[in-house]
Amino acid sequence: MKIEHYSRTPAEPADGVPGVTVRWVIGKKDNAPNFAMRIFEIEPGHSTPYHQHEWEHEVLVLDGEGTVRQKDGESRIGNGSVIFVHGMEMHQFSNRGESVLRFVCLIPI
Amino acid sequence: MKIEHYSRTPAEPADGVPGVTVRWVIGKKDNAPNFAMRIFEIEPGHSTPYHQHEWEHEVLVLDGEGTVRQKDGESRIGNGSVIFVHGMEMHQFSNRGESVLRFVCLIPI
Repeated sequence: MKIEHYSRTPAEPADGVPGVTVRWVIGKKDNAPNFAMRIFEIEPGHSTPYHQHEWEHEVLVLDGEGTVRQKDGESRIGNGSVIFVHGMEMHQFSNRGESVLRFVCLIPI
Repeated sequence: MKIEHYSRTPAEPADGVPGVTVRWVIGKKDNAPNFAMRIFEIEPGHSTPYHQHEWEHEVLVLDGEGTVRQKDGESRIGNGSVIFVHGMEMHQFSNRGESVLRFVCLIPI
């Protein structure tokens, strides 16, 4: 069993996107067989890319205020919001608040 | 895309365990293909069973104070604790605080 505060895992730049970091808190290095848990932090005024990919996201917002953009428009998200992004669905997470937007995001391995 | 506050999903009794509820916030009903997201709430003084099963758990603690029991003893957990329970590992979550112990727990589908 692994038991560790998420802050023990280093925050790495997320694919060179400015103002966005990712912590791989559970993944292949832990011998996770099916899916990986990552914690994202987006600084105020920053966003992830508006993009799509084959794999799904399962997201729970932990802190902050922001939006999720999809092809039909934007929705507000905040603490306790659950977002399920299907494979190949366009999506973008943006911080619209004055503090960090933090969320946990899981993907298949 | 599904975007919804976790509290919109009903809290169901968890396998008849007193003081423990579960919300299936992302799962088969949402056409999730690989893994399911559940939010557990344990009332003060209550615990999940000390048990094991073939599938893994990926857990992030959201609120409250508690412990995780494994075969080697107990560890304290609280807001921000990440717990990876391997398949077939014995485990038990207990609320040791005075408010609800809330955590997100993902399992393979």
